[in-house]
Amino acid sequence: MILFGHIQRQHKKGILMTDKTRAVLLKSRPSGQISAENFAFTEIRLPAPAEDQVLVEIKYLSVDPYMRNRMNDMKSYIEPYALGQPVSGDAVGQVLESRSPAFRPGDWVAGMMPWQEHAVIPGSCLHKIEFTDVSPAVYLGILGLTGLTAYFGLLEIGKPVSGETVVISAAAGAVGSIAGQIAAIKGCHVTGIAGSDEKCTYLTEILGFRNAINYKSHPNIRKQLRQACPAGIDVYFDNVGGDISDSVMFYLNDYARIVLCGQIALYNSNRLSIGPRLFAQLIIHRVLMQGFIVYDYTERYPEARRQLYQWLKEGKLVNRETTIEGFDNLPGALIGLFTGNNTGKQIVKL
Amino acid sequence: MILFGHIQRQHKKGILMTDKTRAVLLKSRPSGQISAENFAFTEIRLPAPAEDQVLVEIKYLSVDPYMRNRMNDMKSYIEPYALGQPVSGDAVGQVLESRSPAFRPGDWVAGMMPWQEHAVIPGSCLHKIEFTDVSPAVYLGILGLTGLTAYFGLLEIGKPVSGETVVISAAAGAVGSIAGQIAAIKGCHVTGIAGSDEKCTYLTEILGFRNAINYKSHPNIRKQLRQACPAGIDVYFDNVGGDISDSVMFYLNDYARIVLCGQIALYNSNRLSIGPRLFAQLIIHRVLMQGFIVYDYTERYPEARRQLYQWLKEGKLVNRETTIEGFDNLPGALIGLFTGNNTGKQIVKL
Repeated sequence: MILFGHIQRQHKKGILMTDKTRAVLLKSRPSGQISAENFAFTEIRLPAPAEDQVLVEIKYLSVDPYMRNRMNDMKSYIEPYALGQPVSGDAVGQVLESRSPAFRPGDWVAGMMPWQEHAVIPGSCLHKIEFTDVSPAVYLGILGLTGLTAYFGLLEIGKPVSGETVVISAAAGAVGSIAGQIAAIKGCHVTGIAGSDEKCTYLTEILGFRNAINYKSHPNIRKQLRQACPAGIDVYFDNVGGDISDSVMFYLNDYARIVLCGQIALYNSNRLSIGPRLFAQLIIHRVLMQGFIVYDYTERYPEARRQLYQWLKEGKLVNRETTIEGFDNLPGALIGLFTGNNTGKQIVKL
Repeated sequence: MILFGHIQRQHKKGILMTDKTRAVLLKSRPSGQISAENFAFTEIRLPAPAEDQVLVEIKYLSVDPYMRNRMNDMKSYIEPYALGQPVSGDAVGQVLESRSPAFRPGDWVAGMMPWQEHAVIPGSCLHKIEFTDVSPAVYLGILGLTGLTAYFGLLEIGKPVSGETVVISAAAGAVGSIAGQIAAIKGCHVTGIAGSDEKCTYLTEILGFRNAINYKSHPNIRKQLRQACPAGIDVYFDNVGGDISDSVMFYLNDYARIVLCGQIALYNSNRLSIGPRLFAQLIIHRVLMQGFIVYDYTERYPEARRQLYQWLKEGKLVNRETTIEGFDNLPGALIGLFTGNNTGKQIVKL
């Protein structure tokens, strides 16, 4: 029996003692680097679920580099966060109360959720977790938008062929580490670019990358790239942009493909970054460069998830998370992405 | 009867009085702007055609922006010109003597030829002109590499759809003027960017462009682009790079295509040009950018030439040449490309 009131709601799987929940709002838009001051913690009223809505207890929240862009007031492929409203992101939670026929209390669900401890969400925006023999948090990593981004970006745009050389920037990051592993599964020689020796060791020892370059050890990584990729570069999966990508441009093979997945090097800049114009390299080598957003592949998520799950179960894909506990740490976890704190997927566990 | 000696050769269609011919050699590699001093006129010995070779009297020579790159000692998709050797380029001539079964004296032929008055060339490097009801010079324009570049670049990479907005840079140039006309044939709204009011008038009055922007009248053409392309830009056929391309980036529609055909704005620079990093625009709008070289489509030249010829005969394509007469003017014609002297195809008639 479900009682809904101002004082108490009781659920089969949990008890929500109040109709209020904690939330993190966007307090101000950052100029340049984001900081904790751009966020405000508050308590908001939680409405009763309307028809087709679901009340979710949020368990894991993902923080991702693209969220930095949503903090700007800029037209993009996804709406900017509204000032004074909760930040949102990919999340996993458990259904407490459902007025959607697709969900029942106790179900684990994934989808875009606000930075709240509980939220009322349209059922159409949620996806019921189908593989229950893995941690639900994996639905923010390999089986979530992160894994799907790596999967479709690498395979649909990069189109790696066995024996080819693949370079991944931000290779120890959430998307990069999966993209590199998939490239290795496909029989490619994979070189990762990352920001510490520990991350580089992780890439070569644990994830099966052939080479890894610590870009912080070298003012210019062109020499390292030449050594790591003696046959040139066929696929560049780019998460960072900036100087690192400039260096890669000089070693592209004919008919190389560049997957433009992210440009984290530029996201915290409040003015245009300046760099060399290297498009002549793209002409000389007939390079295909394509901007990529995973949402364009929504209809194919189930197929990709099945493949990613299979590779995970076979031990071909390693899932790695950096987990911070506590709702209070949400802003700090996001900020940490830009200082290279995380290896693999950065998750906040509530 | 053919007599070959040091003194005189007589041919069915012409008389070559000597075994020597004039040639233009690459004397020095330019640093930055090319100048007449980079070239040397000389007389070279003309060998007798060996088996499968053809002696050609060169009648028309094409000068093209890509030739500037071949003057550098740089690895590229095509060999750099060798110092002290003749410059070469697309040309049309008439066969004087043939030891190739594919050609007979009197045949008009097109292909890559040295900057000489006469040349001995392997028959396999020549292509017999099939449509004789147009000026042979058209085989350097609409029916030559110029037209083929516009055709394949626009249709295979740009993939314009009726009703879409297409922007062409260097639109009054050889390739740009044809690419824009083909886009108009395909039912697109075409905006050209060119360097004078005369060229702009030519684009809109003669070639059927909807709009034309004189980039020399405006320090920044973003406002003009916004006005000319109120529905945004779906295809950008880029011949120039640099500031002009930067401006275009801000008006790309989702799933826009950029045909990277040339970067003439950068060719005469002896160091890397610097500009804003705008790849985030490509991600946000899932833009495809592809470097393009016409040689990759060699097997489809006949099909494309038939289509281009048909459009020409139907009056849907206007052929425009800027012709300079005289062998002595070859270097000046090439140099003039970079100062915007030409409208349409720049040809030197010998």
